[in-house]
Formats: sequence, structure tokens, C-alpha cells
Amino acid sequence: MARINEHYRKLAAGYLFPEIGRRVKAFAEAHPGADLIRLGIGDVTLPLVPAVVEALRRAAEEMGTPAGVHGYGPEQGYEFLIDAIREGDYAPRGVALARDEIFVSDGSKQDSANIQEIFGQECQILVTDPVYPVYVDSNVMAGRTGPADARGQYAGIRYLPATEANGFVPDPPEDGDVDVAYLCSPNNPTGAVATRAQLERWVRWARAHDVVLIFDAAYDAYVQDPALPRSIYEIEGARACAIEMRSYSKRAGFTGLRCAYTVVPSELTGSTASGERVPLRELWSRRQSTKFNGVPYPVQRAAEAVHGPEGRKQTAEQVAYYMENARRLREGLGAAGFRVFGGEHAPYIWMRVPEGTTSWGFFDELLAKAHVVGTPGSGFGPSGEGYLRLSAFNDRARVDEAIERIRRAFAAGPPRADTRA
Amino acid sequence: MARINEHYRKLAAGYLFPEIGRRVKAFAEAHPGADLIRLGIGDVTLPLVPAVVEALRRAAEEMGTPAGVHGYGPEQGYEFLIDAIREGDYAPRGVALARDEIFVSDGSKQDSANIQEIFGQECQILVTDPVYPVYVDSNVMAGRTGPADARGQYAGIRYLPATEANGFVPDPPEDGDVDVAYLCSPNNPTGAVATRAQLERWVRWARAHDVVLIFDAAYDAYVQDPALPRSIYEIEGARACAIEMRSYSKRAGFTGLRCAYTVVPSELTGSTASGERVPLRELWSRRQSTKFNGVPYPVQRAAEAVHGPEGRKQTAEQVAYYMENARRLREGLGAAGFRVFGGEHAPYIWMRVPEGTTSWGFFDELLAKAHVVGTPGSGFGPSGEGYLRLSAFNDRARVDEAIERIRRAFAAGPPRADTRA
Repeated sequence: MARINEHYRKLAAGYLFPEIGRRVKAFAEAHPGADLIRLGIGDVTLPLVPAVVEALRRAAEEMGTPAGVHGYGPEQGYEFLIDAIREGDYAPRGVALARDEIFVSDGSKQDSANIQEIFGQECQILVTDPVYPVYVDSNVMAGRTGPADARGQYAGIRYLPATEANGFVPDPPEDGDVDVAYLCSPNNPTGAVATRAQLERWVRWARAHDVVLIFDAAYDAYVQDPALPRSIYEIEGARACAIEMRSYSKRAGFTGLRCAYTVVPSELTGSTASGERVPLRELWSRRQSTKFNGVPYPVQRAAEAVHGPEGRKQTAEQVAYYMENARRLREGLGAAGFRVFGGEHAPYIWMRVPEGTTSWGFFDELLAKAHVVGTPGSGFGPSGEGYLRLSAFNDRARVDEAIERIRRAFAAGPPRADTRA
Repeated sequence: MARINEHYRKLAAGYLFPEIGRRVKAFAEAHPGADLIRLGIGDVTLPLVPAVVEALRRAAEEMGTPAGVHGYGPEQGYEFLIDAIREGDYAPRGVALARDEIFVSDGSKQDSANIQEIFGQECQILVTDPVYPVYVDSNVMAGRTGPADARGQYAGIRYLPATEANGFVPDPPEDGDVDVAYLCSPNNPTGAVATRAQLERWVRWARAHDVVLIFDAAYDAYVQDPALPRSIYEIEGARACAIEMRSYSKRAGFTGLRCAYTVVPSELTGSTASGERVPLRELWSRRQSTKFNGVPYPVQRAAEAVHGPEGRKQTAEQVAYYMENARRLREGLGAAGFRVFGGEHAPYIWMRVPEGTTSWGFFDELLAKAHVVGTPGSGFGPSGEGYLRLSAFNDRARVDEAIERIRRAFAAGPPRADTRA
């Protein structure tokens, strides 16, 4: 009798975005004329840039020739892409990586879900709260937690609240009773970004307590201030304590093309029960070569093109376009009386919902009154309750229209002052 | 202190194909002039067919337009591809599938590695032996086994030998002390194919003992006899006991493009500890929506093109080309005195190695004397010892040359009779 993995049953009703999809679909069916503006799921809206399209097309044609066909590639990715990453993303920031420390994959979602597989079952996980749900859900499915409580927090996971008081970038805990800690900067969902000093404190803590940091930098391209770190490896000592993930999804509109990468430095190790140190790079390599088969050759060529002179220029223009959207959302909603955060080094706006309602309540209200789709902050964890995430990924005119609709719908005024703790 | 997943350390030194790669690389470096013929890893060699290249190119251009850009797609796959699968692969065989029973993915390797995640930790796994290593290794990494013994068999997994005596298609065991059984037909590595009667026995057994069959049909396009089942769902009752996996890798040369799919029928259930039945479809859907993000849009368009009239014709010609290679390998090596199996409904030849040597010994000998790369049968499990797998995926002239070289190198004659048990 095949028994199921009962840990799945601890998960909340559905993954956040499918649940939003269901509510939006029901609303649209009930209001067939409604012109919805979707600022919910953080999906790009601009087309692929010409340099990427050209690389895809060339690779497609190459694959149709006897000399140019590419079958199974190296599971870690082609050297042409790995070298473009080393030279394009790391060398300019003063970070030297070896080829075999970079693992090309089909998404940071996948990598951040799969990375827990290389750690022991008994590892103590820490996340900031609110948090990208995949970090938590993948650990729940793997059996590292108990059931969720009424607020949606799972027994066995440590949550570090990201609040207005700490600028949504919590410091590491006082103690070191943690094995693996997930950090995301620029942050999804709050839009906050960690400073060098904050990352230094995390690295120092991780080294002091032998903690592995999973540093998700999927939004690094949105950092506007060159003084802010883009990579955890800009922090001294991080090579010995941190795994880093980056993605082409948001920097180059690859959400429908699927390419990302994970860095596991050679000196980063974990421990066996007997205290032997084992390089995590070897474990991740084994995981990927057994359970993964590489990214499509044309997609790797497309990612390579992002690093070329044309690709860099064209994708930078797209990032600037979305960041101008973010600026308008921030300022427009701020002027309308909302408390708004983020949107300066990230494509997300994190807004307080009006007094007396909840994240999901305001989600429904926004949908009903303004026909605008956001993402309820509570969907990212209990500390997200009372907030809503808006994404800057949309057409400029639609963003302006959304701001105007929200302004009108809530003309009576949301709370101008923060009256909560 | 981050503890590692120590189950990884039970794995043999390396995944089979990387190990072959290392040996071939060492040989090539020691013999720089050697003209190697690679019949080892089963990777396609013909270019993508024109219909697929055209679909890829069109999708690339579409992604470069505001109206045609595709971001995140449905995690299960686009309906256009799911419908092409239903109508192209199943309807002609009399099998009706609902849309939500088909999950498009980036590879059968991934799916067959990941499927174990939805089952309980205590599930008893059964595989045939020799076996595609991923079924076993993924369960080892998940902690369902003890260590490997001297023959490479893991404590806690049941192995059903596929031998000359049973035509390399073992019947199910007498008892039902199994929860999940992996079957592969046409078989990798032996090239054997299960008959309707044999699959009926497996389905009857699975239903009688509440076993879930994982039916890997990645090579179904190579079945030549229309009377042989291509899908497990051609067998009555299979919808209630079987998951099926298929791939575009070998049927259409997608090893470098990455597309496959898994079918989980709605009536297929597993059990909780308390005996409640849970649809496996829901669990797999949750797994995929949390830990996967869909196949690139251009790749799904390319897969769709495989089902079109041009794509069907062009890919059928490639399959016929490889199957003619298989015929030549079978007959040529048979005429040279080797005992050969498979190659009639599969692109693999399974050959006995000469008396007095082992799979790896013959692998090295073949490399040294004929500069031909095969795959040692023992790399697929203990019952593969004494065999070597040759792949039909190569250029015709190279296949003929390989046959001629093997004939010459072993002119003294391999054993003509089977003197082993």
C-alpha cells in the first residue's frame, strides 16, 4: 500500500499565487466588463530585448544543423555562460569565482526549493518574516517542521520578523541555534535592501555559529545605489558561509524562458554527525547531476546575450522602466495618504493596508473598488499581515491608471499615521 | 552547525555517465590521435527537425513583441501542448486523458527523480535490475535505503533481476510487499520491451496489492510493432495504479531542449497512515507548483510542433534512422559472434561481454582496442554485470565503422555460446 508524504498535508490550502489566481478568476467571471490591472504576481511585461531574441533565434537555427546541434549539455551549464557570469556579474564587484562554483539552473524558485535537500533532516531553519513562500514550503514538504499554527507559522522553523521598526531588514538573532538561514535582498516581498553593514553582521554571525546562509539575490539588478552590495561575496568571509542565487527572470524578462544560477563556493562545508566537514559544492553537484539535466542550449545562449554590450544596455533600460513605475507607485500612493515602503532598490512596493482591515480584506477591497490586483502581505507570513505588495512590473499607462483608481477609490483617506505597534 | 544530508554518502562514487566521461577523457588525453566513436551515453546526434526549428524561431520572435511575450506560464504546461499530447499520443491508442492529468516538465530524468517526493518515507521501493540509475539514486538521497552492499545493491530496495531467462522483462513478484514499483519499457538499458500480456500481469498485481507503478515510457517512439502497447493506460485498470512518463528527448532530439511530461490519472490515490485515500494528482500538482516553474515557452511551442503533420513525419524519419543503426549493430555484432539483445523496439543494444571479463573490463578493452565507447552494464545494477550497452544514436557511417572495428579487434572470437547461468 503506497503511503503518501503526509508532510504535504501540513501546507496551507494552496500556494499563494494559485489562490490569488482563483479569486481574480472568480471576480472576473462575476464582473465580465471589469478592466483588471494586475500588480499582483511579479511577472515581467516587457518583451524580450532584441539581443536576447537574436541569440535565441541563432541558437534555434544552429540546433537545426549537423554541426550545431547540442544534445545533453554539462549539468552545471555551458562554460560560455559560466564565464559570462564570472566576468559580467562578479569581476566588476571584485569577486572572483571558479567555474565549478557556479551552477546554471532553470530558476531561482527551483534552486531555493531544492537546496534544502543537501542538508540534514534535523537542521534548524531560519527565515525572515514575511518571506518568499518557497523557502518555507519546501522545508515543510521535506518534513523539517511540525504543523502550522493559527497564524500560519510552522513549528520547528524560526521566524525573524521584518517590521517597520527594523526597516524590514532584521539583524541576526542573539543566539546561534540555527543551521540554515534564508536571506533575500533586495527583498521579496518588502522591497527592502540590506546594507553592507547589515550583511557584515549576518556573515559574522553565520561564521561564529557555523550557519549556512542561503542568499537569494534574484532582484540584484534593481539595486540603484552602487555602494550597496549586490552579492553576498562582497562581504569578507562570505565564501565560507554563504550560497548565493541569482536569476535572469527579473533582470532580463526571462520568467517565460527560465534561467538562473546558484553559487556554492569551494570552501563552504557542512558537517556529518561525526564532525567531518564535507564541501557543500560536492553535494549540490551530485544533486544536480542526478536530478537535473541542464538548461536548454538556446536559453543558455540567450542568457549569455544578456551579458553582451547590447544585452546589458537593453536590459538596463527595462530595469529603469520598471523602476520608474516603482517610483510613481511609491510617490503616488504616498501622496494619496498610504504608508508605502520599498520600490527604491526593488520592483516591489510594500504598503500598509487601511486601519480595521486585513491583507486579504484589502486585497478583496482593492479588487472590488479599483479593479487592481495586489498580493496580500499575510500570504508571505504573519508579519506581512496588514500589508499588501504591489509589483512595478506593468505598462506605464496601466501603473498610472492603477494609482489614479486607488486614489479615487480610497479618497476618504487611508490612515495617515501608523497607529499600530 | 549545518549538518549535511548524509544519505548522499551512501551513493556510489559517481553517477554512471560522469564516471564514463572521466575514463574517456583520460584515455583521449593519453592517446591524442585516437578517433573515438561514442556509443555510450544515449544522446541523439541528428539535428532538430525543420518543423521544430521553425517553431522555436517563431516563438523567439513572438517573445520579442509586446503582444507575444510570455512570462510565467501555467506550471503544468500550456493547454496547446497538453491538447497536442492528448490528441497525438493518447487518442490514437484509445486512451482518453483529462487536461489536468498531464504535467509538462523539463525532463523524464527530473520527473523520475522527483516523483518519490510525494510518497511516504517508509515506502518499499521495487526496481528491475539492471535499471536506469536515477530511480534508485533519488530514493537513496531521500533516505529510503541503507548502505550499498559489495554488488552495489542498497539495503531496503527490492531488485527484480532482468535476465536472459526472462527475456529481460521480469514478472511481478509473488508477494505484494511493495509500495512503489518502477518499470521502464522499452527498457533502458536492456532494450527489451514488455508485451501486453506482461503489462497486464503487472497491472493486475499492482491493483491486487495497492502498488503504484511508475511507468517510464521515454522510448515509446521506438516501438516498431503496433500491437505492442506504447502506454500503460492501454491496459485496463492502469489508470487506478500507474503514473506514466514520456519525453521528447529521444523521439524528437530534445536532449538539449528539455521537454517531457508525466501523467497522473485522477483516480490514482495513495494512503495516509489512518487509511484515508489521497489523489496523487493533487500531491504532484502541489509539488510542481511549489518546486518548479514550467518549461520555457519556446520549448513548449517546439514540442507542440513535434505533433504537427510535418513534425510527425520528420521525427519519424529520425527514429527510423536510429533504428536502422540499431539493426546493423544487432546483426553486425551477432555475425561477429557476440550475443546481442534489444535493438528491435528500442535504440539500445545489450551485448554479452566475452568470457572472463567484466562490464568495466570490457568497457576499457573496447575503448583501448576499438576506440569505441559503450556503457558498462554493471553501471545499471548487479544483474547488468557481464553486459555492455551500445547506443544506436550516432551517424550511420560511424556505426558501421564501430561494428567493423569491434569485429576486427575481437577477431579471435568472443564466446559463441552462453556458458553462464
